[in-house]
Amino acid sequence: MSVTDRERSATRIARDIETLSGPEYTTSTEAIQRYAYTPEYARTLEYFADALAELGFAVAKDPVGTLVARNRPAGEPVFGIGSHCDSNRNGGPYDGTLGVVTALEVCRLATELDLELPLQLISFLEEEGSGFGQMLLGSRIMLQRVTEEDLRERFRAIDDGRSFWEHAEAAGYEPARWRESSHVLDDLTGWIELHIEQARVLQDTGNRIGIVHAIAGYVHADVVVEGRGDHAGATPMELRLDPTTVLAETVLELERLAVAAGAGTVGTVGELEIDPGLINAIASRLRFSLDIRGPEDERYRGVAQSIAEFVEGAARARGMTATFVERQRLSATPLDERLVGALEAAAAATGEPYLRMHSGAAHDTMCVAERVPSAMVFVPCTDGISHHPAEDADPADAALAAEVILASIAALTPS
Amino acid sequence: MSVTDRERSATRIARDIETLSGPEYTTSTEAIQRYAYTPEYARTLEYFADALAELGFAVAKDPVGTLVARNRPAGEPVFGIGSHCDSNRNGGPYDGTLGVVTALEVCRLATELDLELPLQLISFLEEEGSGFGQMLLGSRIMLQRVTEEDLRERFRAIDDGRSFWEHAEAAGYEPARWRESSHVLDDLTGWIELHIEQARVLQDTGNRIGIVHAIAGYVHADVVVEGRGDHAGATPMELRLDPTTVLAETVLELERLAVAAGAGTVGTVGELEIDPGLINAIASRLRFSLDIRGPEDERYRGVAQSIAEFVEGAARARGMTATFVERQRLSATPLDERLVGALEAAAAATGEPYLRMHSGAAHDTMCVAERVPSAMVFVPCTDGISHHPAEDADPADAALAAEVILASIAALTPS
Repeated sequence: MSVTDRERSATRIARDIETLSGPEYTTSTEAIQRYAYTPEYARTLEYFADALAELGFAVAKDPVGTLVARNRPAGEPVFGIGSHCDSNRNGGPYDGTLGVVTALEVCRLATELDLELPLQLISFLEEEGSGFGQMLLGSRIMLQRVTEEDLRERFRAIDDGRSFWEHAEAAGYEPARWRESSHVLDDLTGWIELHIEQARVLQDTGNRIGIVHAIAGYVHADVVVEGRGDHAGATPMELRLDPTTVLAETVLELERLAVAAGAGTVGTVGELEIDPGLINAIASRLRFSLDIRGPEDERYRGVAQSIAEFVEGAARARGMTATFVERQRLSATPLDERLVGALEAAAAATGEPYLRMHSGAAHDTMCVAERVPSAMVFVPCTDGISHHPAEDADPADAALAAEVILASIAALTPS
Repeated sequence: MSVTDRERSATRIARDIETLSGPEYTTSTEAIQRYAYTPEYARTLEYFADALAELGFAVAKDPVGTLVARNRPAGEPVFGIGSHCDSNRNGGPYDGTLGVVTALEVCRLATELDLELPLQLISFLEEEGSGFGQMLLGSRIMLQRVTEEDLRERFRAIDDGRSFWEHAEAAGYEPARWRESSHVLDDLTGWIELHIEQARVLQDTGNRIGIVHAIAGYVHADVVVEGRGDHAGATPMELRLDPTTVLAETVLELERLAVAAGAGTVGTVGELEIDPGLINAIASRLRFSLDIRGPEDERYRGVAQSIAEFVEGAARARGMTATFVERQRLSATPLDERLVGALEAAAAATGEPYLRMHSGAAHDTMCVAERVPSAMVFVPCTDGISHHPAEDADPADAALAAEVILASIAALTPS
């Protein structure tokens, strides 16, 4: 039984997405390209602002340009929904934008159904980092995870090198008041972000909705194996110090460890750099990257620790040396079980297939969750393709998610 | 017991090498850099021509500039010795040049000891391919393994793009008569080339002389593994098509197969190209090169065949595809067992440690051996370093080799 008119929701969501994929809303004809402080981005915010104003929401911007629209006065509790509507540099129509569009649909439905739900929609600034090379920038500003020096000097536009500060002022905002951005979260009793999954789990398991209980943390590291560059034809097998053998053993051990750790732990070698990289030369040196993640810090960090020890031992056993150098680490973000439970109940009530899962990618919700009980909802995207013009998703899944989110908020909101 | 005054030979060899490392003989102050038809190369040939003329040798050049000096009139049988004196682009003092210098020392010793040996010294043109990007160019011209079109048009100088033909004419040679270069080999009853080993087998096994019984053939190939580019954080281990796992299995299988094949069979992955090559992306595609060699065609080609099957199976087992594309193959060159035996006997007679071995690298002798019973002698070079200014070898080893070569030729020459 459908609580909402999902077909109508799907039509409206499809129309929003189609509109926001039009030439006024993207700087590229080949992809969706939309960064903070561009005219195309400003028009996108206006699109949402107009639609929300029409629903009776009070629409505002925080000092750096985060869109905030609410149907209750400041100081009263509201439930937060939204995502971001900037794109990555070679983006598609759905990443981020579908979350804001679906939040708008939740606002529409709440209004149409006279549910009297206190809501606040947020569209975060610069989640993708495409404008200034800084991921989750808007939510990090909101959580005060940046410094004024960052905003005034260090964060500079990829396209013209001018500072974030200059760009924000030129767009009519007041970056000097950036600390006040934190007040956006003051009245939130909860936060739910919808996003396309950006992977293929939902599609491949035949689920229409993902209820996200955690966002993965990660360890990023580099391994450098020092071998000995010798002639590939003239050096017998037993006299070689060939670093590709250590790479090979590590790739297979990483796979074994990640599978053994389970619970969503994953490990990837994504970058390979070989020196000198000639067909007839044994490599003298090899660098490769490690991306080790999971929703449970203990598990994926255990894999990272084991691999660090493994590479050193594997190199030593062959007379070489290897160093494991951590590049970056970020803890996993467990989400709020009360919200997750409400979403699961609402999803179950629809009778449609859904999956409790974690997010392997980072989202603004990682920041929001520090202050507000939070959860996320995923919808499938075709073949997991994202950050690419071919990105595709089904508005009917977003309409279903809108109903699930609406029902959860209703269940969570004291009447 | 030393047949020759090795200390005097070592001094003369060291002096020759030192002279030819001087500023008149190299176009670079950072490395030995000497290509055909440069003034520095011409002066190097003159250095040898003068020294050989002084010993009573008739000195000539073939139509493209190969130096040929003999102590018997044309038409009489002679025994060939020599190597090349061009360098690679970042060369050291010994690669090639030590072979011509040691051949000159053999001529000196034969003269001084009144051995009446019929000798012909050859210094081949453009072995390294540094001038025109064509390896073994002089010996391939001699063996008619090029076309006139190659010489007139296709082979062009790396530095100025002008054709081989133009450069040869500008240097005073007659490339139009290039086919007559084949007559250089007409009177040869045998051929012995000395070269630095360019690997570390002699050094690491404590031998001063290598008697080369074969020059390795090889298969060069590329493997392309098509996986599926997915998000490194969001794609569970069991849904991945990660081509690095096929690389890993192949590297270890190649090592296993080469060791199992034995008899000098070697296999190397020297080039790695990963797409997209991002820390947070599972690769969609991976290319790697294979260099599989050995002195016995059946063995190394068996490894290449097994690896071609292995990569396809390993990829298929994981739901991916892999293609093995051969880039180039060259058969092994077995050398003449009578000459090899004579060299072994002469080496044994010196009481110094020597090793019967094969060459993993290519040499002009691969061409000469097609028409003339041939062998090679290696001397150690420090840590196997070659094609680098740090290249180093001990003139005392070359002096020992000169005695071994002289004694072998004496034993092989009917009196």
